[in-house]
Amino acid sequence: MSARRAGIDVGGTKCLGVVLDDTGAIVQEHRLPTPRGPENIIDTLERLAGVLAPFDTIGVGVPGLVTRDGVLKAAPNLVDIADFRVGALLSDRLGVKVEVDNDATCAAVAEWKTGAARGLTDFVMVTLGTGIGGGVVAGGQLVRGANGFTGEIGHIVVDPDGPFCPCGRRGCWERYASGSGLAGLAREAALAKRVRRVVELAGGEADLVRGEHVQAAAREGDHDALNVIDTFGRWVALGLVNLTNVLDPQAFVLGGGLAASADLYLGPIQQWFTQYLYAPDLRPHPTLAFAQLSEHAGAVGAALLADVH
Amino acid sequence: MSARRAGIDVGGTKCLGVVLDDTGAIVQEHRLPTPRGPENIIDTLERLAGVLAPFDTIGVGVPGLVTRDGVLKAAPNLVDIADFRVGALLSDRLGVKVEVDNDATCAAVAEWKTGAARGLTDFVMVTLGTGIGGGVVAGGQLVRGANGFTGEIGHIVVDPDGPFCPCGRRGCWERYASGSGLAGLAREAALAKRVRRVVELAGGEADLVRGEHVQAAAREGDHDALNVIDTFGRWVALGLVNLTNVLDPQAFVLGGGLAASADLYLGPIQQWFTQYLYAPDLRPHPTLAFAQLSEHAGAVGAALLADVH
Repeated sequence: MSARRAGIDVGGTKCLGVVLDDTGAIVQEHRLPTPRGPENIIDTLERLAGVLAPFDTIGVGVPGLVTRDGVLKAAPNLVDIADFRVGALLSDRLGVKVEVDNDATCAAVAEWKTGAARGLTDFVMVTLGTGIGGGVVAGGQLVRGANGFTGEIGHIVVDPDGPFCPCGRRGCWERYASGSGLAGLAREAALAKRVRRVVELAGGEADLVRGEHVQAAAREGDHDALNVIDTFGRWVALGLVNLTNVLDPQAFVLGGGLAASADLYLGPIQQWFTQYLYAPDLRPHPTLAFAQLSEHAGAVGAALLADVH
Repeated sequence: MSARRAGIDVGGTKCLGVVLDDTGAIVQEHRLPTPRGPENIIDTLERLAGVLAPFDTIGVGVPGLVTRDGVLKAAPNLVDIADFRVGALLSDRLGVKVEVDNDATCAAVAEWKTGAARGLTDFVMVTLGTGIGGGVVAGGQLVRGANGFTGEIGHIVVDPDGPFCPCGRRGCWERYASGSGLAGLAREAALAKRVRRVVELAGGEADLVRGEHVQAAAREGDHDALNVIDTFGRWVALGLVNLTNVLDPQAFVLGGGLAASADLYLGPIQQWFTQYLYAPDLRPHPTLAFAQLSEHAGAVGAALLADVH
């Protein structure tokens, strides 16, 4: 009988559960809405596990800072969550060991074992969504760190005098290089009256400009919008270069909502990457790959945590 | 009979060779001047190996970008060096395998196995000298990277519009947080007439201000000099925070020339570190430790490369 590995991804609005077979293929999936508060979340996870049963291992991916012992310390996108012992509590309910890790780390594991990073020993997963998440594989192993907090790359400070971040600091990378970063760069350009067409697409209101309006104008060939995309690509590249200087990866896997419009950003990112990289002529550059698992990445990676923890 | 492990550190002015016993203690050491050009360096390394013989393993630390195959691609502090196959050439001469790595990586290995980082599984070595070098240990293994270029942390870009770096880019971390960074911050303050006492100590010439003058004035309690030290500590902290966001280490080991005046910087670094760190209240902060092996670090680490590669 082949092994069944269950994984659940806890998102801001829904919990997605999957079961994988030995090949890593999804053989079952089920969704439930994410409720408010720790008690209700544990109830939901228990119900979902019941639907997915029987399984040999189970893992959970959660959005936020999670310790090596499966405690979710903080989760900006969940309601009323702090020091939530999700691993221990669910384990008590189910009577089995429960692996827990950050959702971006789970995405890294999923891409590593079944997606864009298959066979690699050194890569960084970068999820470009509302914020920026990350996961690090180095020397053929998942890097977890002292506390389990490896890969909080969205909060790399790229400008100590930059705009405030909800985390309380200034100039975090995700203020520039995420979905909200793109929207921020676009609104800044709109308020400075530098992107007429983008504002038109937003119904004429500079304050309503979002990333999708920049993307739409850029696809029309609008020069001003392409300038915003170039600035955005420059910030993405800056962070990728800094990660390269630290870790010298074979590849980056870019995921999250922005990866869907990858074709728009790839050129600017690569051009600025070469410009910022130390000793660009003395080495092969890391590959820029795009995530293959999209919305299933977190759940699939959670199901595979038992293999890599 | 116990094993003898030989290690050689190739510096800008001298090559230092050591032999370690089983406990990691230095049982022999010898120095030769570093000559110009690859042929002469190989001759010197062969002579040094002859003096250190007999040994069971040998490793070499070199200053610059070195590949996993022991090719020194570039070395800013050595004369006429590019694509120098130091590992293969010395191996041919000696008839044994020669392990080669970057000198800061060797220092990391030395501190890990016999110094300030003994017993740790996750730490970053940061050598604050003329520039900044680094070595990374994560999950109990030395991280080497795709090309062997892990830990080029001095070239993390902390301000894309900052001052030019000899590497060709702008705003590299080592423009601010190294020995030359401190001197640069001090000269900037001197030219702006903000550090009267520091300029006095430099003989009255703002252009002659160096890091040691700032340190001396700071030790007298001079407020202006302490302000420069504070700014310096802020830049060091910024880089350490960024490394923490990526790797979540248990500790940093600070080495290099500036570590000798650690007492002056420690306070400002720790204060700014807490200010810049993401979620500072939700985790133990990494320890700031200081290198224990000083000038022997590179050679000792080179001798231990065979254990960790």
